[in-house]
Amino acid sequence: MILLSRPEIEALVDLDAGLLAVEQAYIAASQGRATIPPVGYIAFPEAEGDCHIKYGHIAGDPIFVVKIASGFYRNPSIGLSTSNGVMLALSATTGQLEAILLDEGFLTDLRTGLGGAIATRALCRPDARRVAMIGSGIQAGMQIRCLRRAMKDTPLTFTLWGRSQKRAAEIADILAREGIPVETTDDLESLCRSADIIITTTPSREPLIRGDWVGPGTHITAIGADAPGKQELEPSLVAHAGRRIADRLDQSLAHGEFSTAFAAGLIDRESCGELGDILSGTMAGRENPNDITIADLTGVAVQDIAIARTILDARRDRLDKTGAYLST
Amino acid sequence: MILLSRPEIEALVDLDAGLLAVEQAYIAASQGRATIPPVGYIAFPEAEGDCHIKYGHIAGDPIFVVKIASGFYRNPSIGLSTSNGVMLALSATTGQLEAILLDEGFLTDLRTGLGGAIATRALCRPDARRVAMIGSGIQAGMQIRCLRRAMKDTPLTFTLWGRSQKRAAEIADILAREGIPVETTDDLESLCRSADIIITTTPSREPLIRGDWVGPGTHITAIGADAPGKQELEPSLVAHAGRRIADRLDQSLAHGEFSTAFAAGLIDRESCGELGDILSGTMAGRENPNDITIADLTGVAVQDIAIARTILDARRDRLDKTGAYLST
Repeated sequence: MILLSRPEIEALVDLDAGLLAVEQAYIAASQGRATIPPVGYIAFPEAEGDCHIKYGHIAGDPIFVVKIASGFYRNPSIGLSTSNGVMLALSATTGQLEAILLDEGFLTDLRTGLGGAIATRALCRPDARRVAMIGSGIQAGMQIRCLRRAMKDTPLTFTLWGRSQKRAAEIADILAREGIPVETTDDLESLCRSADIIITTTPSREPLIRGDWVGPGTHITAIGADAPGKQELEPSLVAHAGRRIADRLDQSLAHGEFSTAFAAGLIDRESCGELGDILSGTMAGRENPNDITIADLTGVAVQDIAIARTILDARRDRLDKTGAYLST
Repeated sequence: MILLSRPEIEALVDLDAGLLAVEQAYIAASQGRATIPPVGYIAFPEAEGDCHIKYGHIAGDPIFVVKIASGFYRNPSIGLSTSNGVMLALSATTGQLEAILLDEGFLTDLRTGLGGAIATRALCRPDARRVAMIGSGIQAGMQIRCLRRAMKDTPLTFTLWGRSQKRAAEIADILAREGIPVETTDDLESLCRSADIIITTTPSREPLIRGDWVGPGTHITAIGADAPGKQELEPSLVAHAGRRIADRLDQSLAHGEFSTAFAAGLIDRESCGELGDILSGTMAGRENPNDITIADLTGVAVQDIAIARTILDARRDRLDKTGAYLST
């Protein structure tokens, strides 16, 4: 049985392998090759907390993954992170526990970053350069790191806006130390008007991005809205888009960025698609350079499976290379 | 974060504390003080395996528990146990992972044994002495150990019948080495006819125990039937009982020992009760010494919570006593 701590997991991250694995996982899900049971949920209203259990299996994979992820919203007041998490990998042929990844939520942040990068790369214009990153949390940095890697042959520029100027500057500093130059701005409207790519990563409960700020040909990847009541884009902007793609359409229409426009009757299910179908070529991606395209990502268990497998594969490869055959 | 292996867990078992904790957990569940979401499930038909995820929280408890339990039915052919399991204890106030119990299914066996002992003690006649144990698997031994402890002031005698005489003798040998005398027999009918208490622990898919073998005043605790198609008692025996009690009535009527009689219209929901209500005194238990009473146990997440907490409490107490304050 393998037990990996967060630092050990971070040392095993390979963004290229992660991008490939998450892309293949999206395709498997859209092709019906993944078993994804309903997400388990338990709430702790007195503690302002809840816990989600996501699990699933991709046909042919040697492992299946169970992810337990909690959010307790009073934690910051006692110096703890709101989010926590652990992933378990079990053998899909014997049921034995193969690995415990004590990632403390890091792998969820990472697979969300990889998913955003894959969606953005798949749908933005080939000549897109200017990336507007909306939000100043962990996910803003993760999206930038992953997109830069996913589009490493494209000279992207990143400008970050956050409700907190201080936090935005901190994220920019962290990325600068990693060799990724990021500008910051306090002018959200101008940032959106000049962007080729807009990525939203906030927990906003009302639209931040107005439709008339978004020019033709812009691609938007919406990450933040993943629960009822959350919303980052004006519904008219969602309705106006030439392509609406979700990682999992059921979730997006129920409680993701598309849900408000869907509930208002501004869009229908048939006018939306799934990312896996774009990636596999079953459905066309961007068809017109002047289209606004929107990808809404609410998170799918196949991403968790893919990222856990990537970490475990990297560990095995490293052991193979060093000749250090630790107990597995 | 606490990580306990199976041997470490076994060394921390305290049957008295476990009996008390599981009894209180049943009462909490019946009084609506427990959150028990639907059981998660994923199947692996190609490997003849499946995995259940049981989780829940008892109001006021500092922890909640997630149990992942798998059954892969080809495992014995490669020398592995069919069942595997791990329990995670997380803080109900911060969501942080507090403990991983690598029990390999042992705690499920134990809490099932404790639940059976609690039900048997609550419903058998005060003068019951002769216990017929039906089945020769791990659970037969567990029921005997736990019942002996639960009724330690009563001079119970145990006689065991199993489809495999060899395995029955092995279980009796193991218990003899633990100081628990157990007879074996190959005559199931005579065993049932002479018993005050019958405990069934087999995976049988057709009735093993006939109604006319069971005398007035007998108590039966049925453990084996926990999934559609499994059945140990004749439906007419279930229908004839003066008291029918389940740990969780919904489960028992859907896929437990009561389900066949219920589906056939031989019993109705109103004629059954829940164990927690008997234990709390809300519902009367045995009312007549000549009644046949039946307890059907299919397993509830509150048992998992109770047993995990018992192990973690025992660990803390032991550290306190030895003065060895290891990292928690």
